[in-house]
Amino acid sequence: MMTTTYSPSTLSLSASELASALGQVGHAPVSTRAKAETIMREAQHSICKAFADLDGASFAEDMWTSPDGNTSYTDMELRNGNVFQTVSSNVAVINGVFSPDTARAATGGSLQIDSPMPFYVASLSLVVHARNPMVPSAHANYRYFDSGQDDVPERWWFGGGADLTPNYLFEEDAAHFHRLHREVCDRFDLAYYPRFKNWCDEYFHIVHRGERRGVGGIFFDNLSDRDPELLLAFVAQCAASVIPAYLPIVRKRCSMDFTEEQERWRQLRAGRYIEFNLMYERGTVFGLKSGGRAASVLRALPPRARWEYQHTVQAGSDEARLMEVLRHPREWA
Amino acid sequence: MMTTTYSPSTLSLSASELASALGQVGHAPVSTRAKAETIMREAQHSICKAFADLDGASFAEDMWTSPDGNTSYTDMELRNGNVFQTVSSNVAVINGVFSPDTARAATGGSLQIDSPMPFYVASLSLVVHARNPMVPSAHANYRYFDSGQDDVPERWWFGGGADLTPNYLFEEDAAHFHRLHREVCDRFDLAYYPRFKNWCDEYFHIVHRGERRGVGGIFFDNLSDRDPELLLAFVAQCAASVIPAYLPIVRKRCSMDFTEEQERWRQLRAGRYIEFNLMYERGTVFGLKSGGRAASVLRALPPRARWEYQHTVQAGSDEARLMEVLRHPREWA
Repeated sequence: MMTTTYSPSTLSLSASELASALGQVGHAPVSTRAKAETIMREAQHSICKAFADLDGASFAEDMWTSPDGNTSYTDMELRNGNVFQTVSSNVAVINGVFSPDTARAATGGSLQIDSPMPFYVASLSLVVHARNPMVPSAHANYRYFDSGQDDVPERWWFGGGADLTPNYLFEEDAAHFHRLHREVCDRFDLAYYPRFKNWCDEYFHIVHRGERRGVGGIFFDNLSDRDPELLLAFVAQCAASVIPAYLPIVRKRCSMDFTEEQERWRQLRAGRYIEFNLMYERGTVFGLKSGGRAASVLRALPPRARWEYQHTVQAGSDEARLMEVLRHPREWA
Repeated sequence: MMTTTYSPSTLSLSASELASALGQVGHAPVSTRAKAETIMREAQHSICKAFADLDGASFAEDMWTSPDGNTSYTDMELRNGNVFQTVSSNVAVINGVFSPDTARAATGGSLQIDSPMPFYVASLSLVVHARNPMVPSAHANYRYFDSGQDDVPERWWFGGGADLTPNYLFEEDAAHFHRLHREVCDRFDLAYYPRFKNWCDEYFHIVHRGERRGVGGIFFDNLSDRDPELLLAFVAQCAASVIPAYLPIVRKRCSMDFTEEQERWRQLRAGRYIEFNLMYERGTVFGLKSGGRAASVLRALPPRARWEYQHTVQAGSDEARLMEVLRHPREWA
């Protein structure tokens, strides 16, 4: 494991100083692979430790490497905990080959190729569903991608983000989650948060329902407009923010009383979450189309969901207050 | 309403005699529209009557016509009945415009166009989920499509099918459902059933799971290789077969005892049903992409579903016996 830490102080270094401090030689992307993988693994470790401490239950670890060694998954799963229904975290490191279809799916259309092209990805994902419907679900995903012939990256980029999906709206929770992410973004570029916040609202759009999946957060992709070392530091800090941005909300809400009716509402919202993931979520479409293990790709779906024909919420209700911000995203930080 | 009946005796007529008997003038497709719509409406009426008689609960009818008059839906919904969780039937009559994307989605890739093209469709759909997990879910969908500029159909075709989705395998039920559909097919063409049975197994394939959604039935699309009147008769008889093919199974299974564990298994299977519909089902993709009402397009999803990470079935169990036929489709008739 690398022990390099990525703290805000690296920001005071120039690109070449950064490269030297981080042991980088030659073109950035090749060494970036190892560093990205380390960031993803270290973040997964910290996150799972913090979640296990809060819950009291422990994670099952499932590591899998393909026979050819080109794909490895590290699945960390906490199921049926005291606080959480599921905490599902995965680190994937893949040396694969894009088809024109999977390249489009993985990049949201920005990588257009006519013939197969090798790619590399190191990614971290986290999806959390809690027992108490007053606790929002949370999702984070960070990844480094490169692609090119003969193991020489012709293109590299970072992507990722984190977002919050409440069943009931507590404005202070949404504001806290956004503020923490804004702080990380602002350290790197004041234009990042406004851009990535809007991108998140656009991305998590259940188009056929005219609703967002949740109250958003940040989302970015194809990010390669500055030194890869700087972007590694940015992604590392984003991933580290999951704990302070989300766990205080969990602690505050996990012992609240709730009714059967509120649990039913949560399951209806879970149905919308599933509609989004199976129809629009790029990771799911890419994961399944590129031959990923279905159990892994779909492991983050909410465990119970409902569909009711023409379900409506009562005007002025807590449910209606949530729907209002899902239909019309608000500024939170 | 037209009163023409479509019985096997029409088979003894030649194409021109058929056309004359059915009052057809000029090119088939224009008059075919009205006949197809009548078939769909009459079948919906008979089916809903038979289901309401069996259940004891009644259907809510919801008719909707777009302001321009180009789209009409007749939704018939029986919810929370005595026997059925949901019986959802829809007749849609649409004068729309294909984009290159929706044309591909609606025809499984066989209609490739570069610019927008008007289309007409009259379709009937039926989805049934029962209370008792020993009762299989059932689905049927029949449609007439045509497309071409200036309201002159350059192309027309029929599509449809019916299939059975059990949670527990009763071989005699699968055999009965297939036999009834084989009988209709055989009246028209001995090659139909084998072809449409295999097509059904191919279509209802949850590719990322390596499972079929159920034990199949028949499925066909782009069917235009003979006189449209003959195909109207075929589709009318297929739609009429839903009642004798499915309701005897419902009657036989709807009072069986079942355990909580078996209900849980049903909800896990419902999760797979939802994966199929949101990711692969052409009607859903087409319906949502062409701006169909989400509540209508998605009304047929099972009302409750579960996902469990790496759920496994015990060797030799009833659940394993079902999985075996979902993984390796069998001949039933």
